[in-house]
Amino acid sequence: MEAARLHAYTDDMENGLSIDEIDRPEPEQSDHVVVEVQGAGWCQTDNHIIEGLWTDYVEQTLPMTLGHENAGEIVEVGDEVKTVSVGDTVICHPVMTCGQCRQCRLGEDMYCENVQFPGLTTDGGFAEYLLTSERSVIPLPDGVDPVEIAPHADAGITAYHAVKKATRVLNPGDHAVVIGVGGLGHIGLQCLDAMSAAEITALDVKEEARDLADSLGAHHTVDPTTEDVATVIGDITDGAGAEQVIDFVGRDETTAYAPDIVAPGGDHHIVGYGGHIHEPSQSLVNGEFSYRGTLVGRYTELQELVTLVERGDVSLRTSRYDLGDINTVAEKLEHGEIEGRAVITPP
Amino acid sequence: MEAARLHAYTDDMENGLSIDEIDRPEPEQSDHVVVEVQGAGWCQTDNHIIEGLWTDYVEQTLPMTLGHENAGEIVEVGDEVKTVSVGDTVICHPVMTCGQCRQCRLGEDMYCENVQFPGLTTDGGFAEYLLTSERSVIPLPDGVDPVEIAPHADAGITAYHAVKKATRVLNPGDHAVVIGVGGLGHIGLQCLDAMSAAEITALDVKEEARDLADSLGAHHTVDPTTEDVATVIGDITDGAGAEQVIDFVGRDETTAYAPDIVAPGGDHHIVGYGGHIHEPSQSLVNGEFSYRGTLVGRYTELQELVTLVERGDVSLRTSRYDLGDINTVAEKLEHGEIEGRAVITPP
Amino acid sequence: MEAARLHAYTDDMENGLSIDEIDRPEPEQSDHVVVEVQGAGWCQTDNHIIEGLWTDYVEQTLPMTLGHENAGEIVEVGDEVKTVSVGDTVICHPVMTCGQCRQCRLGEDMYCENVQFPGLTTDGGFAEYLLTSERSVIPLPDGVDPVEIAPHADAGITAYHAVKKATRVLNPGDHAVVIGVGGLGHIGLQCLDAMSAAEITALDVKEEARDLADSLGAHHTVDPTTEDVATVIGDITDGAGAEQVIDFVGRDETTAYAPDIVAPGGDHHIVGYGGHIHEPSQSLVNGEFSYRGTLVGRYTELQELVTLVERGDVSLRTSRYDLGDINTVAEKLEHGEIEGRAVITPP
Amino acid sequence: MEAARLHAYTDDMENGLSIDEIDRPEPEQSDHVVVEVQGAGWCQTDNHIIEGLWTDYVEQTLPMTLGHENAGEIVEVGDEVKTVSVGDTVICHPVMTCGQCRQCRLGEDMYCENVQFPGLTTDGGFAEYLLTSERSVIPLPDGVDPVEIAPHADAGITAYHAVKKATRVLNPGDHAVVIGVGGLGHIGLQCLDAMSAAEITALDVKEEARDLADSLGAHHTVDPTTEDVATVIGDITDGAGAEQVIDFVGRDETTAYAPDIVAPGGDHHIVGYGGHIHEPSQSLVNGEFSYRGTLVGRYTELQELVTLVERGDVSLRTSRYDLGDINTVAEKLEHGEIEGRAVITPP
Repeated sequence: MEAARLHAYTDDMENGLSIDEIDRPEPEQSDHVVVEVQGAGWCQTDNHIIEGLWTDYVEQTLPMTLGHENAGEIVEVGDEVKTVSVGDTVICHPVMTCGQCRQCRLGEDMYCENVQFPGLTTDGGFAEYLLTSERSVIPLPDGVDPVEIAPHADAGITAYHAVKKATRVLNPGDHAVVIGVGGLGHIGLQCLDAMSAAEITALDVKEEARDLADSLGAHHTVDPTTEDVATVIGDITDGAGAEQVIDFVGRDETTAYAPDIVAPGGDHHIVGYGGHIHEPSQSLVNGEFSYRGTLVGRYTELQELVTLVERGDVSLRTSRYDLGDINTVAEKLEHGEIEGRAVITPP
Repeated sequence: MEAARLHAYTDDMENGLSIDEIDRPEPEQSDHVVVEVQGAGWCQTDNHIIEGLWTDYVEQTLPMTLGHENAGEIVEVGDEVKTVSVGDTVICHPVMTCGQCRQCRLGEDMYCENVQFPGLTTDGGFAEYLLTSERSVIPLPDGVDPVEIAPHADAGITAYHAVKKATRVLNPGDHAVVIGVGGLGHIGLQCLDAMSAAEITALDVKEEARDLADSLGAHHTVDPTTEDVATVIGDITDGAGAEQVIDFVGRDETTAYAPDIVAPGGDHHIVGYGGHIHEPSQSLVNGEFSYRGTLVGRYTELQELVTLVERGDVSLRTSRYDLGDINTVAEKLEHGEIEGRAVITPP
Repeated sequence: MEAARLHAYTDDMENGLSIDEIDRPEPEQSDHVVVEVQGAGWCQTDNHIIEGLWTDYVEQTLPMTLGHENAGEIVEVGDEVKTVSVGDTVICHPVMTCGQCRQCRLGEDMYCENVQFPGLTTDGGFAEYLLTSERSVIPLPDGVDPVEIAPHADAGITAYHAVKKATRVLNPGDHAVVIGVGGLGHIGLQCLDAMSAAEITALDVKEEARDLADSLGAHHTVDPTTEDVATVIGDITDGAGAEQVIDFVGRDETTAYAPDIVAPGGDHHIVGYGGHIHEPSQSLVNGEFSYRGTLVGRYTELQELVTLVERGDVSLRTSRYDLGDINTVAEKLEHGEIEGRAVITPP
Repeated sequence: MEAARLHAYTDDMENGLSIDEIDRPEPEQSDHVVVEVQGAGWCQTDNHIIEGLWTDYVEQTLPMTLGHENAGEIVEVGDEVKTVSVGDTVICHPVMTCGQCRQCRLGEDMYCENVQFPGLTTDGGFAEYLLTSERSVIPLPDGVDPVEIAPHADAGITAYHAVKKATRVLNPGDHAVVIGVGGLGHIGLQCLDAMSAAEITALDVKEEARDLADSLGAHHTVDPTTEDVATVIGDITDGAGAEQVIDFVGRDETTAYAPDIVAPGGDHHIVGYGGHIHEPSQSLVNGEFSYRGTLVGRYTELQELVTLVERGDVSLRTSRYDLGDINTVAEKLEHGEIEGRAVITPP
């Protein structure tokens, strides 16, 4: 089968991956599942993987097929698989988990001690077929298109996961700030609106993104290139600050907003990455705020997000690309030229 | 009356405060309370105030009487005070709060929108008498010595407040790490032991502090000057990391432990301050951990801590000094020469 | 001034209250506030008070002016009131609380140890003027009519309080069941819809109420007189049961639904009363469900509800009556003949 | 192998079970595990099963081997078992769960949609060998005797599970009441003491049980046959009531204590069963308290309890019996004549 594989880390996105002919995967365990990939979302993290940004955090053996936002049809199952069948259309939770370790048992499958992450640590979904397991697939409701929903497998639940933490403490009239209304941010904003009665302010440097935020339920938008963020949030919140800030950017300048815009006891959730936090300890003490790192969401959270999609509460803008165009996608994303979320549709 | 007052910010601790003769405070509102100070703890924060470290965070008008860890006897009350009487021995919560704003109404009195902080923003307790309010005093149980308990008014509830957050999520067998077994840390450690069945590891550069930790219930101690902290915590936790880390130091090198020692989903609580956090956003994302700033605890938490003291679960080592010796105390603390917690006993 | 007062407990609603001429209240404490009542909602609890149903639970001295859902204009304030002024239009939280006891300090003002409940334990708002306190009044946003919002002072926050507990644990796609779409239920349903992405099922014996539920966001409605409730809820939830059930009726037959319709680990919130719970202990153990009593909400919850009203998320159907028609209202309610919520508008 | 089996429901405990010769179980799935039973605790629930009390709640096919508190040595494993090996000594969580359904994924394995409960719905551990699965066994730390710990597999984690819920909200100085200091209650009391700094009151009709409570950390004991429970709890709690009540008895008279002894907002946890709740809805509303059913704890909670046992925080009194004496045990328990917890030790 055809697969888009990384052979060496590089900053040259135009030649990042190559299309190789490799063997189609087979079930090797009783709970394995093989999915014929119909849609595989391209993620900013794919660029970061190609650049080698993840080598400090996980083990990778090259060549490796990328692609961790996958959806498609089950074509083969291991001999003890019970909850899904050949022919089911599914979205794939991005990791394969053991179900046996304490973390899995606690419901924290993202912390699985035996986790495999196809597209990050093993072969992923930019290919005709993907090997995953029964614990990683969620059957799609009728009428949900696997190509359209694929990016939710990672971008979607990452945004959802952060927002869900925030909504657990947001009361009606409390303030939430969304920093960055891009691929993840525009999903997060819709989740916030569906799951809370908070007052939402969206920050983005692009006018188009702010307009999108407006149309998706933001009550206020801010352009940080022309407005003083601390002053504007102060005005909107009567000087109290925002109880929850969700930072889909994670650069030095966005993490630095926290002491000025987070309400006492509030949280600045770090979803995007690339930059740093540089802050005096005293600043966190004085404002009693937190920087909360946030990872991909749980399997059960992907179930919940699929429900939001089915209800029509969350919609996603996607554009489709052939497997052969994969480096074009990487290059375009690098320059901010992808409209909505790019989804690769293998042959 | 005599009061130890700050007239100008300085790094010269030997001449930080001067003993002035000023008017004794009187109740000015129906809920005011005047306390004859019997014990007033000296805190590292007093040194920081003298150095001018708080001028960026709060408004201060000099000269100002310091002292925010106060206990003593009520000698006068406003005309609508109902819950305490002249003659009651009380510990004073460090702040005066309005009871009317939304934060007070939520129980978050430390975030009171109209807060006054005697010893930090108004005259404090290094004096014969202190003006405070009905909402700020807690009657002491019989047999509790106000001089002995005074430091709990700030050091105690700050440690307690951080630990209480931690114990809400600590299960038996989970790991807690206490960084710094000094004035606050040794209280925090005792609270952890009384309120959870977590496995406790204490870090301190001083052998004496590690021995104290041992005797107060720590299951492991670590000397960060001779041991590799990440390796030791890894060994103790079977590679899983500690669910809760409470950092009573807050220097660059202690905040930097977090990515290596905090378990996924866990917290690194910032209690001590002086240093910075410098960390890549990706590090918080990858480990899904949080840096959680933590402030002084609530009035109700001081009630809970008084209970722990009364039960004998938490004990404090104190040494007593006259009001006239106040600069000696500041100087000694600067050089780490105070045994236990210094308490000023005004005439 | 004129006031509608109860002189003796009776089942004769037509002659329950009498209109008396009594003295207008004056501030007696520095934090007292006198409100000219513009709207005072009539509540099922008023009927229960007249019948003497509350004598087992609280102390009442007759004659007493009823009315605990009050809104109007401040006409006089005690001499230390700071947060509101004469001329402010306010909604009154139903209880007067001390702000000093541990419960008030925890934010649980409904459990205030020194609580007074105008209209239940002291004179209420079916009168020209009401005596309350600074801690009990919430200024209304511009454009909010005090007559229209008055019933939220009790009916509203009671419904809101129960729903807020439920939404804290409801995930998208989880199921919520609302039993009874009357005065409280139709508010609760709107709150559920605004604050969660749960799937909502409403039960009511009246077709009109079910139609109202449909229009307010219920995804399913059930008529318990013609449908088997356990079967229908089983079908809707794929046999799993509803995570949260909010029972605005509280009769024997509605509390008896719990073992059949509540999902494992879920809650059956008791808001309405009049009937009993009769259930084997084993039934609660087997399904690990809870019966959770729920009282009027907190002051801060009334603030949140006012926000929902201002946002347009919650609307209330009211009908207005003169003070002189008060017994007619009681009689009509007894026979289910009030449209929406009755609000008394004193002269 | 020999197994003690129920052939027909009966109230005649002396002849409840018969010792049959049946086939030794074999692994039928890749994750199955066969345990040679070394200790199997006898539980009050075994008596209830024999009486037919569970037929309304679960499906049972007779004959069936009872015994759901099992510990022993692994003698055979399915071909994909990875986390345990032949020769490991383990305690068995009482249920076999699928690890695939949403409830398992949420960490709520007790609500597994495909649950099997050996000893209640399939063959249990009053036999030489027990069939269970990898997800149900926890390796014992060195030095922990499987016979001594066996009863924790059900009695222990049931008590622990209820107490853990309570400790999550208990602050130092808050009050907890333990009703019934028998097999479960005396474990619950020790867990409360280890995991909180609450003030504990224990109720029991037997002097011996009250003495045991005293020695295990109770601060007060009450004899409900000679003391008025409401009055005593009122005195102990200064009229405020107990924040958490854990009812290990669950009879009509113990559930009826709730309105008089539970603090506002507090919980009456139902662990024991046999009786009923009969209470007006108004009573739950007025006191805003809950009746919370509580089931066996989760696998991860059994891990936590094993830690408490290993730490020495929880100890259990057991008495050992041969498999052949099984009906004697049932009979003795019926008459309250078992000392501590009876453990069957199959040949």
